[in-house]
Amino acid sequence: MISYINTDKLKAFQALKAAAPADIRKLLDAGRVASSSVKLGGGLTYNWAAMPVSDEIEKGLQALADEAGLVDKYKAILSGEMMNTGEKRLVLHQLTRGNVLGKPVMADGEDKDAFYKGVLASIKDFSEKVRNGEIKGSTGKPFTTVCQIGIGGSDLGPRALYLALKGWAAGSGIKTLEGRFISNVDPDDAADVMTTLDPETTLFILVSKSGTTQETLTNRDLVLETLKAQPIKGFDPSKHMVAVTSKTSPLASDSSMLASFYIDDYIGGRYSSTSAVGGVVLSLAFGYDTFEKLLKGAHEEDVLSTEKDIRKNGAMLDALIGFYLRSVAGYPSTAILPYSQALSRFPAHLQQLDMESNGKHVNRFGEKLSYPTGPVIFGEPGTNGQHSFYQLLHQGTDIVPLQFIGFRKCQRGKDLITAGSYSQTKLNANLAAQIAAFARGKEDENTNKEFDGGRPSSLIYGEELTPEALGALLAHFENKVMFQGFLWNLNSFDQEGVQLGKVLAKKVLAGCEGDSLLKAYADLLI
Amino acid sequence: MISYINTDKLKAFQALKAAAPADIRKLLDAGRVASSSVKLGGGLTYNWAAMPVSDEIEKGLQALADEAGLVDKYKAILSGEMMNTGEKRLVLHQLTRGNVLGKPVMADGEDKDAFYKGVLASIKDFSEKVRNGEIKGSTGKPFTTVCQIGIGGSDLGPRALYLALKGWAAGSGIKTLEGRFISNVDPDDAADVMTTLDPETTLFILVSKSGTTQETLTNRDLVLETLKAQPIKGFDPSKHMVAVTSKTSPLASDSSMLASFYIDDYIGGRYSSTSAVGGVVLSLAFGYDTFEKLLKGAHEEDVLSTEKDIRKNGAMLDALIGFYLRSVAGYPSTAILPYSQALSRFPAHLQQLDMESNGKHVNRFGEKLSYPTGPVIFGEPGTNGQHSFYQLLHQGTDIVPLQFIGFRKCQRGKDLITAGSYSQTKLNANLAAQIAAFARGKEDENTNKEFDGGRPSSLIYGEELTPEALGALLAHFENKVMFQGFLWNLNSFDQEGVQLGKVLAKKVLAGCEGDSLLKAYADLLI
Repeated sequence: MISYINTDKLKAFQALKAAAPADIRKLLDAGRVASSSVKLGGGLTYNWAAMPVSDEIEKGLQALADEAGLVDKYKAILSGEMMNTGEKRLVLHQLTRGNVLGKPVMADGEDKDAFYKGVLASIKDFSEKVRNGEIKGSTGKPFTTVCQIGIGGSDLGPRALYLALKGWAAGSGIKTLEGRFISNVDPDDAADVMTTLDPETTLFILVSKSGTTQETLTNRDLVLETLKAQPIKGFDPSKHMVAVTSKTSPLASDSSMLASFYIDDYIGGRYSSTSAVGGVVLSLAFGYDTFEKLLKGAHEEDVLSTEKDIRKNGAMLDALIGFYLRSVAGYPSTAILPYSQALSRFPAHLQQLDMESNGKHVNRFGEKLSYPTGPVIFGEPGTNGQHSFYQLLHQGTDIVPLQFIGFRKCQRGKDLITAGSYSQTKLNANLAAQIAAFARGKEDENTNKEFDGGRPSSLIYGEELTPEALGALLAHFENKVMFQGFLWNLNSFDQEGVQLGKVLAKKVLAGCEGDSLLKAYADLLI
Repeated sequence: MISYINTDKLKAFQALKAAAPADIRKLLDAGRVASSSVKLGGGLTYNWAAMPVSDEIEKGLQALADEAGLVDKYKAILSGEMMNTGEKRLVLHQLTRGNVLGKPVMADGEDKDAFYKGVLASIKDFSEKVRNGEIKGSTGKPFTTVCQIGIGGSDLGPRALYLALKGWAAGSGIKTLEGRFISNVDPDDAADVMTTLDPETTLFILVSKSGTTQETLTNRDLVLETLKAQPIKGFDPSKHMVAVTSKTSPLASDSSMLASFYIDDYIGGRYSSTSAVGGVVLSLAFGYDTFEKLLKGAHEEDVLSTEKDIRKNGAMLDALIGFYLRSVAGYPSTAILPYSQALSRFPAHLQQLDMESNGKHVNRFGEKLSYPTGPVIFGEPGTNGQHSFYQLLHQGTDIVPLQFIGFRKCQRGKDLITAGSYSQTKLNANLAAQIAAFARGKEDENTNKEFDGGRPSSLIYGEELTPEALGALLAHFENKVMFQGFLWNLNSFDQEGVQLGKVLAKKVLAGCEGDSLLKAYADLLI
């Protein structure tokens, strides 16, 4: 029997609060680095040596995982229980990459496993035809560019994954269709992107689950207008646009589309990268095989996430440690620091994933919470960040927990020895150095050069950022966020906090409807 | 007589702490919007109506500004006092855009005003010759692309400004040389950028004040190696690279450069966008006239920043309110939310500017501080952010102060009416709606749909994101950060917190020198 109770009612949480926090400066040594690793999917490893988790606290975290029934709640999701309690929906994004429990999941009288597999088959078929030239643009030219029009989860995840795989594809000699993304309702976004592509060789992917997203429909119209403004003989826009949408949306029956690929209400936007929302653009850009590898890595991580032993379940351990840092140590933010330029937009995706899932003030029953929930998430790639905001991370007055990510090899294989070492070696030397510097600090007679240390960090590392590794990395953070939602007793799968702004924006567009405050701001801006 | 004393010793600060914080939900109305604006430079306006600042608190902030001598300290900077106390240097970035006090500033026996004007003249001359084709590539083709190689302040600011002006230049019919940027020591960064440019028509700009920055020199070598690997008949790399560096750096006397442009030790990296560090790339990309307009806007803001009345000095008022939110209300982070896709990387620049300047644990005399200093800074453009992390901003358990930025017009003029309104109108309707939603909240019987409100925000707005507006925006935040440094009694102009990582990275590259912890991490990664 699974019970959903607030964090502060859990005995294991009270025990954790009573235990003395560990001092990383004393705790961390080479032996601890060697003994603090958990295998993730996709060949990745999670290392938590530089976290303030003593043996006692580790036991406390295991006890918390057990008492909160984290794995049982995850299995409830996997088995198709209605876990998005706010919107009364199933939560099935893990099913898009494989059936972890191996049992059928039914919804609306349909086998959802079969549904997602059917979508995959249609993506495979279509993307292969586009890539081998069987499907061409309306003027007879093969497609060389794909341009996704979407916002939020239809943009951040797919864009981050596209950028993450571009270099891998180049290094692996895989034919690539260039990716472009239009998201913002700011008309300069679409106008800018349109200057970088040739309509005759571009396939647009319109992504909106509801088929009613204001920004996305507006940008579709802007794109079509731009195409009309520069008429090309024989050009037919309906041969240049596909839709990713739900079967019930107005877009699903739009005859001006070359093809449609379906999603359903059981995949939240921020969890949709492994559905058709990410699958169509990634399969077109890098081939269906590449997308399948990404799904494989994600599925491996999903399977590992069913382990009850925190030493075997990296996503759950990461979640528990993050929870400890937030709810016991009281740190309000977390930085995501990939030492990989290919992951330049991965922190922006995790920012949505985490902050939109767990930035909540009520529990899953709608009761107001008296304790802090999800932290602020931000980050930029290293070593760039070292020359930017790391000053505050090292010597600021607040402690910011850090999540490092690194890979032994670069993607493109274009490296050079300068001053005695490869660039990739320099990159990872910096990463190793930073973890040690943050943890240990440095004493100095000059206080301005003194580092307090004791700044916690974890490291996810692997051989190379491959599609499998990327899939596992994505699923790791999705599952981490899910487990933290269970710990805070939240519904991590709705987003009621975005509704009020939409309602008021409509009022502004309608002339403010007697709301003088809105009118005053509108007068400044419009 | 200026005195530098810690915040908590100021009477005005104690008084502020004693006053009751204002409730935005009750305070904010249309009248307050109309009466809470301060003119900035470049045609911009700062509106702080939705900040928790009652008349009483406003008086308290003015008293704090007076007691802390904020303007006098700023004038000390302008007059050339040694205000970077850690590195014992003058702080002269404001002088790169004009002499606010009109008096000569001497350093190292040189009139610095004349020095910066001389650099500007050389940038003007060179950029005009490149743009009109008088200076061509080594194979006789005119330059069409400029590629900056730099990191930190040599990358974030110039890149953000380039992206901010690209649409404006297109909309204004100004000839543009495409901009590219290589920063990360990750070799995939250079390899990726090199696939997007034609060496024959590309001019590289190597930017390093010291001439010894590891990442930048490494990337120069990677670029040269790539050029050598694809030999082009008659191609001479020395005709394709210029340096921006200090006169004493090894790069200054490097004969393999087409030209050199100088900076000095009195311009910190994160404050260098209006020096040659930003000036060369922006003048090449958009013309010297455009860069000059940017300087004009920045100078206007610098002049306004000498006003002692907070109602006339928007940078100082913004600083005081931000200080109040951090040091009295206790909020640990601030979000930068430009409703302008052109400002997509401006938050990343401000992240460095603010966190590297004020993320300090000692005061300007090296004494450890007992109060919090600079906040965590993060942000993404709206409306994108609305579909991402705004959930936490609206309904999370922590309050995050917000800085909105918006413009009445788009840059490219390619807009369309859909569903009754232009995209730009929709963009700004959303912005107006968000400010009201954050401030007022909404009651609801369903607590999941309830918004507490009381979430503070400010708004900087203008007619269009022009070079003048952009320059003023840049200077506004530079001066805001400076004033906050004065309030916390910091030196905002050094960055000792980045040194330890550099030292340890060298140890890792040298085989760790007996440091077993470093070795353990290096073994995982290298």
